[in-house]
Amino acid sequence: MSLLDEMQVLASQAKTASHELPRLSAEDKNRCLIAMADALEGQAAALQQANSLDLETGKQMGLSNALLDRLRLTEKRISGMAGGLRELAELPDPVGRVLDERIRPNQLKLRKITTPIGVVVIIYESRPNVTADAGGLCFKSGNATILRGGKEALNSNRLIADTMVKAAKKLIAYFPTHAIQVVPTIDRDAIPALLSLTESIDLCMPRGGEGLIRAVNDCSKVPVIKHYKGICHVYVDSEADLQMAEDIAVNAKVQRPGVCNALETLLIDQAVAANFLPAVADRLAEHQVELRIDERGRKILKSSKARVIPAEEQDWDAEYLDLILAIRVVENLDEAIGHINHHGSGHSDAIVTTSESRAQRFLNEVDSAAVYWNASTRFTDGNEFGMGAEIGISTDKIGARGPMGLEELTSYKWMVIGQGQIRE
Amino acid sequence: MSLLDEMQVLASQAKTASHELPRLSAEDKNRCLIAMADALEGQAAALQQANSLDLETGKQMGLSNALLDRLRLTEKRISGMAGGLRELAELPDPVGRVLDERIRPNQLKLRKITTPIGVVVIIYESRPNVTADAGGLCFKSGNATILRGGKEALNSNRLIADTMVKAAKKLIAYFPTHAIQVVPTIDRDAIPALLSLTESIDLCMPRGGEGLIRAVNDCSKVPVIKHYKGICHVYVDSEADLQMAEDIAVNAKVQRPGVCNALETLLIDQAVAANFLPAVADRLAEHQVELRIDERGRKILKSSKARVIPAEEQDWDAEYLDLILAIRVVENLDEAIGHINHHGSGHSDAIVTTSESRAQRFLNEVDSAAVYWNASTRFTDGNEFGMGAEIGISTDKIGARGPMGLEELTSYKWMVIGQGQIRE
Repeated sequence: MSLLDEMQVLASQAKTASHELPRLSAEDKNRCLIAMADALEGQAAALQQANSLDLETGKQMGLSNALLDRLRLTEKRISGMAGGLRELAELPDPVGRVLDERIRPNQLKLRKITTPIGVVVIIYESRPNVTADAGGLCFKSGNATILRGGKEALNSNRLIADTMVKAAKKLIAYFPTHAIQVVPTIDRDAIPALLSLTESIDLCMPRGGEGLIRAVNDCSKVPVIKHYKGICHVYVDSEADLQMAEDIAVNAKVQRPGVCNALETLLIDQAVAANFLPAVADRLAEHQVELRIDERGRKILKSSKARVIPAEEQDWDAEYLDLILAIRVVENLDEAIGHINHHGSGHSDAIVTTSESRAQRFLNEVDSAAVYWNASTRFTDGNEFGMGAEIGISTDKIGARGPMGLEELTSYKWMVIGQGQIRE
Repeated sequence: MSLLDEMQVLASQAKTASHELPRLSAEDKNRCLIAMADALEGQAAALQQANSLDLETGKQMGLSNALLDRLRLTEKRISGMAGGLRELAELPDPVGRVLDERIRPNQLKLRKITTPIGVVVIIYESRPNVTADAGGLCFKSGNATILRGGKEALNSNRLIADTMVKAAKKLIAYFPTHAIQVVPTIDRDAIPALLSLTESIDLCMPRGGEGLIRAVNDCSKVPVIKHYKGICHVYVDSEADLQMAEDIAVNAKVQRPGVCNALETLLIDQAVAANFLPAVADRLAEHQVELRIDERGRKILKSSKARVIPAEEQDWDAEYLDLILAIRVVENLDEAIGHINHHGSGHSDAIVTTSESRAQRFLNEVDSAAVYWNASTRFTDGNEFGMGAEIGISTDKIGARGPMGLEELTSYKWMVIGQGQIRE
């Protein structure tokens, strides 16, 4: 069987499963999730055994200790996966929500109702716990999943998915066997083959580095929801509360610099730069943040405890994910908005100001998934947004935008209820 | 300048325009639409002159009279375009609608608000009036548009777009010049070049034949919303009101057979086939419908006024767009749902039944954009759904599904309003 044929079988099994999943009630799905959680904990020894094969492969591949650590399934991580599934069981069902309802003059009753998306492919890197987390989220939202993890995690991933499916099937005989599948090969060509199957696959979500995500988007014929990177901005407006601005900028930069909602470029209105820049630079210096400052800023900040180097053009497009911050002094609100829309990644951007009208302009005109007024960009996150679990963040504008929880894993359909209406 | 460079300029102009459009209020946009309508009517003579160049090219290309007729801009069609824009001005603004609102335990206030999508590319065939219709719909929803019509309509399309932009700019000086652009070349390679520009283009909507749409989807690196075809079903359930079923089936097939929401396959429950099939066949015969019937059905329908030929496997996957109907007798509701999910195109499918529980199963389990209970599939249409104007129909499940009006041309963003919150 060719690789394409093999992927076709996988995809068409998933499609069939996706058509069977709507028969499960919300209650059924929650019971399955709890059974899956119990089974993962019950199978901890077997999972760790499968995982030890993967760790062995990983060592032979020369993975770093950090990567081997991400790959490792400890007892605690297995409990973590189980706990995640149990939490999912507590969340409201995202399917069947009425988004709109209308009665037409001819008495046709229309209801716009959330549905599962169908078949979702998730592509990710090392951590095997994503298999349970993503499989669980997709299942709770009624989707069939095809999971493709890191090649070094294949044994762990397969056993996690098998354990989940078997547990659910034991509980509910008509649970579709192919609701959660793992791509059974580590062949790299499996991804383009799979993502050419537009008849069976409804969505692909790649998670990982920018290179992986671009490669996936380039080869995919099916819709992809993704974010490449997070170049997040804080703009300190001419009417900002400067103490608040300092707290927000420092928090957004240093609280966890390696994540996509961390601050990368600080924009300071020229009206407040002379007061603000020296103060914030000292605070950032305490956290060992390197500052890359434009010429105008360097003229203001003649000396500083911080390490200061001149910003180059490419600094405005950089996602450092590190204790480095680009700083630019801007003329006004317009220049700030223009800078963000030009250089930003459409992820999370904040204004600090006491002026409601200026904040409103920023919130309206900055073209990003999350726009903040007087708060740290670090809140862009499914849990912080009250979505419960999160499967990723989207900077796309078709389908979900921003953090993706259960609701963001749904589509909708129109239900039209008549009494025999025909079109004249 | 290379073709790719040329497309890059076009796309980046559109991106800039898309960032300027949010500065226009709803009122501004409506005044612009009315000014655009007036200008199109005022420029009727010039438009017809540009159009006569296109008609000349069309004749040289050997276009059929039918296609030449579609290309022609008559006084009446120009008024039609203007009327469409004036109607758009009356519709509610789709941008700024609050989809969700929540206050988090830390007092962060979240608002999920509709926004424009950004830059939308529309690819279509002959009719130049689509330029005004699609350009107007996208503009009203705050999007910048890049329009690519038939190559034989270039002069007409460019003048329509120019007229609209000039009229708006005369009214509002900061109206973005590149809000509505027409691809200025007929080079076929312009499409893949344009659709590789993921940084500037947010969405492509191809309209036309399946071949065009597949070609666009295959080459695009940006999201595409589309429907390939409409293979619509009516299922006559064992508990159907047979008179109603007859009316619905006949209407869905014959009222306008050439459109995507017309009936292509009639599924009849075996329990009612002996009663129903002869009656509906006679009614369809009156409309000269050719019937392609499975073996079981032909055994029931021993003689008929209709032309009957045996259905082949490929008939279940056919979009006839003609007075031809495939008919299959199915065992039960499960087989009907299975048939539709396997052979359908996810467009519009109906059940006729008096049983609410059976209807509910059909509505839940049939995986289509519009699912009907006791009504003709012919209602899947923006106007019939109360959306006002429609830019197309989507059978995709990411982004809009079903008829696409103004709301379906929006995305959303999260506005987060704080009082200085930082993440612990």
